[in-house]
Amino acid sequence: MAKDNKKLVQAITSQEENFAQWYTDICVKAELVEYSSVKGFIILRPYGQAIWENIQKDLDARFKASGHENVAMPVLIPESLLKKEGELVNGFAPEVAWVTMGGSDELEERLAVRPTSETMFCDHWSRVLHSYRELPMKYNQWCSVVRWEKTTRPFLRSREFWWQEGHTIHETAAEAEAETQAQLDCYADTCEQDLAIPVLKGRKTDKEKFAGAEATYTIEAMMHDGKALQSGTSHYFGDGFSRAFGVQFTGRDNQLQYPYQTSWGVSTRLVGAIIMTHGDDEGLILPPAVAPYQVVVLPIAAHKPGVTEKAQELTARVAKFARVKLDDSDNSPGWKFSQWEMKGVPLRLELGPKDIEKNQCVLVRRDTREKYFVSLDELETEIPRLLNELAQNLYQRALENREKRTWAAASMEEVKRLAEENNGYIKTMWCGSLACEEKMKEEAGLSSRCMPFEQEHLADTCPCCGKPANLMVYWGKAY
Amino acid sequence: MAKDNKKLVQAITSQEENFAQWYTDICVKAELVEYSSVKGFIILRPYGQAIWENIQKDLDARFKASGHENVAMPVLIPESLLKKEGELVNGFAPEVAWVTMGGSDELEERLAVRPTSETMFCDHWSRVLHSYRELPMKYNQWCSVVRWEKTTRPFLRSREFWWQEGHTIHETAAEAEAETQAQLDCYADTCEQDLAIPVLKGRKTDKEKFAGAEATYTIEAMMHDGKALQSGTSHYFGDGFSRAFGVQFTGRDNQLQYPYQTSWGVSTRLVGAIIMTHGDDEGLILPPAVAPYQVVVLPIAAHKPGVTEKAQELTARVAKFARVKLDDSDNSPGWKFSQWEMKGVPLRLELGPKDIEKNQCVLVRRDTREKYFVSLDELETEIPRLLNELAQNLYQRALENREKRTWAAASMEEVKRLAEENNGYIKTMWCGSLACEEKMKEEAGLSSRCMPFEQEHLADTCPCCGKPANLMVYWGKAY
Repeated sequence: MAKDNKKLVQAITSQEENFAQWYTDICVKAELVEYSSVKGFIILRPYGQAIWENIQKDLDARFKASGHENVAMPVLIPESLLKKEGELVNGFAPEVAWVTMGGSDELEERLAVRPTSETMFCDHWSRVLHSYRELPMKYNQWCSVVRWEKTTRPFLRSREFWWQEGHTIHETAAEAEAETQAQLDCYADTCEQDLAIPVLKGRKTDKEKFAGAEATYTIEAMMHDGKALQSGTSHYFGDGFSRAFGVQFTGRDNQLQYPYQTSWGVSTRLVGAIIMTHGDDEGLILPPAVAPYQVVVLPIAAHKPGVTEKAQELTARVAKFARVKLDDSDNSPGWKFSQWEMKGVPLRLELGPKDIEKNQCVLVRRDTREKYFVSLDELETEIPRLLNELAQNLYQRALENREKRTWAAASMEEVKRLAEENNGYIKTMWCGSLACEEKMKEEAGLSSRCMPFEQEHLADTCPCCGKPANLMVYWGKAY
Repeated sequence: MAKDNKKLVQAITSQEENFAQWYTDICVKAELVEYSSVKGFIILRPYGQAIWENIQKDLDARFKASGHENVAMPVLIPESLLKKEGELVNGFAPEVAWVTMGGSDELEERLAVRPTSETMFCDHWSRVLHSYRELPMKYNQWCSVVRWEKTTRPFLRSREFWWQEGHTIHETAAEAEAETQAQLDCYADTCEQDLAIPVLKGRKTDKEKFAGAEATYTIEAMMHDGKALQSGTSHYFGDGFSRAFGVQFTGRDNQLQYPYQTSWGVSTRLVGAIIMTHGDDEGLILPPAVAPYQVVVLPIAAHKPGVTEKAQELTARVAKFARVKLDDSDNSPGWKFSQWEMKGVPLRLELGPKDIEKNQCVLVRRDTREKYFVSLDELETEIPRLLNELAQNLYQRALENREKRTWAAASMEEVKRLAEENNGYIKTMWCGSLACEEKMKEEAGLSSRCMPFEQEHLADTCPCCGKPANLMVYWGKAY
């Protein structure tokens, strides 16, 4: 019955049929986003926003626990400021939205709608930093940024997205390097512990690094279809920006010095990662840590005496230890099953007259759809246990998918064959040259995802040029 | 000694000498904001941002408890959308920042950097609303908005400010009216209970209401200098915007209907209200509910054995029930006293070797500077008690200031004399005509603050025109 009803209320494309369409179907039908009437801009609807807020809360607590402070920088950046660091402006200029009028007046200098805020932070620091005693300054801001992308997809690439951007300055290069790594670890922990998404940690090649950075580190997640999603990055800038912006402090030796800088960010893209890592043909599957509702309570035969009251009572009980929603609308149970499956609520709690007689309820896991008949005396232990098992299972499934879709290759022929037959990671040695990286793109359609921290020695030579190779790289097709 | 040190490290203009300068001195020297290099735009520094975040947390919890959901709307709004409601665009057009270029391409239609989002919400609802069953939709968003103001002051009026904007639609006019009132009450409660700022609640005159609204309700706070600060507004739109944007739903009678709409907002202006309501010549005084630190622990003679350790131990203890900061920097005690007074921390906890001997510490209230010698066994009761007393006292002082500075007047001569001699509220009857409202501005320099919900009958006629008058209005000079 649930199935029939489901067909009536919502039909999404299956993953197998068209993964891209399946993805956008979920974005819209689970009511995460709506396409706005501004081309390339999306609206985060309450359910999508609630997921993002849970991710924010988690990250914000982690940032603060490690001594970071939030600030708010202007949304508009003068062109002259953006141009102070040559690489950065070259990287971003093609995709900047420009404000040229204020009220009815033409502006003397056009202003960029913030695409990223390194320049504003440096400008601020150039005025407020004085002494090594004030270092480190470890700042973060939550905001949206605008980048004029040609092709857009909800969460993955849109002209506006919501993110946090951390920006820090330090007395020494070693401290800044350590910060870069610590924040990458923070992102990896959030993904693995809270979003149930396993990630590779590694360093980007020079071709793929952030404009103006000395080094970019990344966490890479693999989606269900085998394509990679860059899910968070952490950049080490050395003192390049400090020099460009004249950020200086009086050091311990009483001499003027330039601080060393980092920046790091994750965005609403993580919601896209959740959808494509865990979702199935019935819809979204949300990791409990960030699910707006962890449990949905559905009264069955709610017109029978006592059912609604008991459902309300249980909801109040569950609310003490989990985020819970009682759906007492007059939609049919089948319709509700489908709707809450589409929305990915981890656990469904069904309660009918017969259950009440037996002092039990039915708990249904969204990931496996297993049913559990649970005594009403055991909700406080069984619900957390099942949520925990579900989270573990999501992580394991994602990890198995990644392992199943990871191949090592030693020759270009092998790379090409594997890339043609599969989506997934292909790991090879690499000589380090841009030419070979570009050849991988041209001949096999692969981009470098990262040089993982956990290096393996797969061969002695680069599969592209045959020259000696010391670096191991993950390659893949990416979102 | 503290005094001398204070003079050394920071000098702010006194309130008496120049209230406006005193205000901006505090904004900068308490490290709340920095002027950015974008004209009219400010940077919220960590301490200012932390106050705003505490206000946000409080309000967000109130909104959610009353069934509101957060969303995120695009930062850019097409001009055609902004123009759909005639009054709104006329009200905002002179102060809109326009994006005209995306990357290197001229845009076909220019886009406004969000000055307010009624238009985006209506546009969204015109697509997603179908049935009365989906009503009410009670949405809120936290964001920044841009308005191209000519003259700017931190928090009070700047080209970008941070706020929340609530937008709701309802099945009936009565429900929308009730929402408008409920959110005004919510703002009043936040101001009075958390910010210790007494407010007048009332309705704006037509001249002062929001562009496109049927009615605007306001909370008005009085600053220490007697000038008024509009601190939050709540608007009732009727179905005007719904009709302009074609927002419709199928009603209970199966006919298409237009929903009734509200919007309401408070902003970082509230931080300005806190400064100007409670501050004194030593700096900021923060209400405990939103103070980033409620207690600062200062070890005295920290080089003596055991002092630092004991201070750390107490800090850990206090952290269990209050936001606390241990200042163990190597600055002098006098410098620290001044710094934390400037920053308005409600309670200072001093601990020296002699205090430790006596199993006591010294607690100093920021508002009265009273000293309390408190047994270390009683911190858990004494700190909350003193914080509470301080909050009460801040509220009482502000209320007394308002009462002292409120006058009733029956004739224009009386109004002009009072307005010349004082800053404060002058309450009079009013006939309701725009001409008399404009005369009050021209002849006495006063703008209408509100028609308070608590009306009094002060006379039978309007002091301006002598005609019969049924409305009582508060007039004042405003920020």
